[in-house]
Amino acid sequence: MPIDYSQRKQTLLERLEKETLDIALITDPTNIFYYTGFYADPHERYMSLVIDVGNRKSALFLPALDEELAKAAAEVDAIHPISDEMNPFDIVKGAIQKNISKIGIEMDVMTVSHQNGLKSICPKAEYTDITPEINHMRTFKTPSEVDGLRHAVSIIETVLEEGLATIHEGMTEAALTAEFEYLMKRHGASGPSFSTMVLSGEKSAMPHGKPGERRLQEGDFLLIDFGVITNERYCSDITRTFIIGEPTEKQREIYETVQKSTQAGVDAVRAGVPLKSFDIAAREVIESAGYAEYFNNRVGHGLGIEVHEAPSIHHENEQIAAPGMVFTIEPGIYIPGFGGVRIEEEVYINEDGEPEVLTSFPRDLRSIELK
Amino acid sequence: MPIDYSQRKQTLLERLEKETLDIALITDPTNIFYYTGFYADPHERYMSLVIDVGNRKSALFLPALDEELAKAAAEVDAIHPISDEMNPFDIVKGAIQKNISKIGIEMDVMTVSHQNGLKSICPKAEYTDITPEINHMRTFKTPSEVDGLRHAVSIIETVLEEGLATIHEGMTEAALTAEFEYLMKRHGASGPSFSTMVLSGEKSAMPHGKPGERRLQEGDFLLIDFGVITNERYCSDITRTFIIGEPTEKQREIYETVQKSTQAGVDAVRAGVPLKSFDIAAREVIESAGYAEYFNNRVGHGLGIEVHEAPSIHHENEQIAAPGMVFTIEPGIYIPGFGGVRIEEEVYINEDGEPEVLTSFPRDLRSIELK
Repeated sequence: MPIDYSQRKQTLLERLEKETLDIALITDPTNIFYYTGFYADPHERYMSLVIDVGNRKSALFLPALDEELAKAAAEVDAIHPISDEMNPFDIVKGAIQKNISKIGIEMDVMTVSHQNGLKSICPKAEYTDITPEINHMRTFKTPSEVDGLRHAVSIIETVLEEGLATIHEGMTEAALTAEFEYLMKRHGASGPSFSTMVLSGEKSAMPHGKPGERRLQEGDFLLIDFGVITNERYCSDITRTFIIGEPTEKQREIYETVQKSTQAGVDAVRAGVPLKSFDIAAREVIESAGYAEYFNNRVGHGLGIEVHEAPSIHHENEQIAAPGMVFTIEPGIYIPGFGGVRIEEEVYINEDGEPEVLTSFPRDLRSIELK
Repeated sequence: MPIDYSQRKQTLLERLEKETLDIALITDPTNIFYYTGFYADPHERYMSLVIDVGNRKSALFLPALDEELAKAAAEVDAIHPISDEMNPFDIVKGAIQKNISKIGIEMDVMTVSHQNGLKSICPKAEYTDITPEINHMRTFKTPSEVDGLRHAVSIIETVLEEGLATIHEGMTEAALTAEFEYLMKRHGASGPSFSTMVLSGEKSAMPHGKPGERRLQEGDFLLIDFGVITNERYCSDITRTFIIGEPTEKQREIYETVQKSTQAGVDAVRAGVPLKSFDIAAREVIESAGYAEYFNNRVGHGLGIEVHEAPSIHHENEQIAAPGMVFTIEPGIYIPGFGGVRIEEEVYINEDGEPEVLTSFPRDLRSIELK
């Protein structure tokens, strides 16, 4: 089923009307994609989607270079190309209503320069943040969006299985990363949804480690955290941790603790309870095993057309879980100097309020042989 | 020779003093890298580098997760980790002088939210844009920076030659893109410096085209525009256009016109003349061959630790070329429905004011056989 972009704009309009806004001016390329079906990265050039609440029309302002692509793909009432020699705010001014007193913007996205440009054409307007409205809408996925997310999961799980088969004696983290990213494109992904993480040995304990020239060795934990973005812009995000050769008793204990923690987090998921309860359920397993100090981050995050979006699954989030939410459950134990284990699943709360785990790659401890 | 980050901060401090600023607050991760040697993408978390003009000290505010990496890599006077539950502006407030009346920010980078955060802790301050100061400094490369850029060029030229050898009957643009990006990582690059462009046939005329499922065919122009970012964060950017099989007369004429145009642009480069003259020299070749309407963009852009940075090489830029500048010369002819040719070089103006072409991949028309 195709996405109904008109309906999305309609829903936003109704929310904006309630807040007595005159216009909303959206500049985040992913939000523009969400409301129009058209994605472009304008780099240093100007792009915005203006929703005029008074006349209920939408207008896309974008670099002239992208006009043809937008005409083919953007579901909007008007397209205004902007050449490099033009001042974009002159073009915006000519296309919007006069006497604007209240403008909705994404305060975490709009730059000071762009707000100054707006102030020059709407000197008396006040500004309000519409990020919460937009994030709220994006939080709840329709079944066709979930199909898009399933497709992104299916690609990354194929990539994981095929990439593991390329592991050999003397291989570096960076070389395995190259194999994975090659396979992503070969299996039809647009690219990685974030910087692919392949970390081995003691590096597996680094939350923001970067794959490097370290060679895979017997006895290593091998932590792989990655995902793809598809051509339809749906993201996936999965983590599995493997062992090179045979695990020690301690490695096995840590692995199995995380495995139980992930299971506890997933088992806790259902509609009608606070999101924090999923974090707490996963965290209790790690705490009661005595590893509390080695698990310092939230248990998960929403994902969709971005790899990190609302809701955040942390131990203080009182928001009530509801159908349509898709998020990760990804507890881990990270022991500096020793190594780390993370096992990450994606979970969808379906229309019946039941959890469906979108990821399916086996979670049991798996040994990899260096051929 | 290692980069002298203290000297860079010193130079910036002197410029800020002249403008009577109290502090500068820098949030662009690439600018923070430029002044400290430490790079991180904080995603939705808060990161800034504060240069205090009064006490001549620098302080880096960043996510607690990245503290260890920053301690190892950042050349700053103080590091302030910020945990997820903290308000970053409370931390900033506690670490800066009182009674701040003038703050320098990057207006094209700082978000409205972050400015609001600053206003909450410095309610009486006025703001000024320091982007021009920073861009000015970044424009002029030292010999060791140019060595870093040469390394990025050397990787991408190896990737180009090896990637061409993988072309075969039935290959798609997307598959060739996957080969190129695999080779980038295999040759030690951190990744592509921008979205790799592999465009064939009539798609080669699209300035913002995206590699897709189109298969390479006899008679196609094959336009490849790509680059790498190295682990030291230097970028390269090169374009070559090939022909699959034998060219027609018209294809050869278009190719040779662009080839002469690139040569004319490169030949015009020297210190002491306005940057616009390089654009005009290249443009005249295309105009006098009757293709003026098919070359609508500027002839080049600076590059360094970002693939697009100052200076812009366009036909109205009166800035005087000077030693240390590195930029592309990349004229092209793009005929909708027919195809396009672009040939892009990187040029450095050395300490004697003479041009050195950093790229070395042959520019003559080359036919590729579909094996």
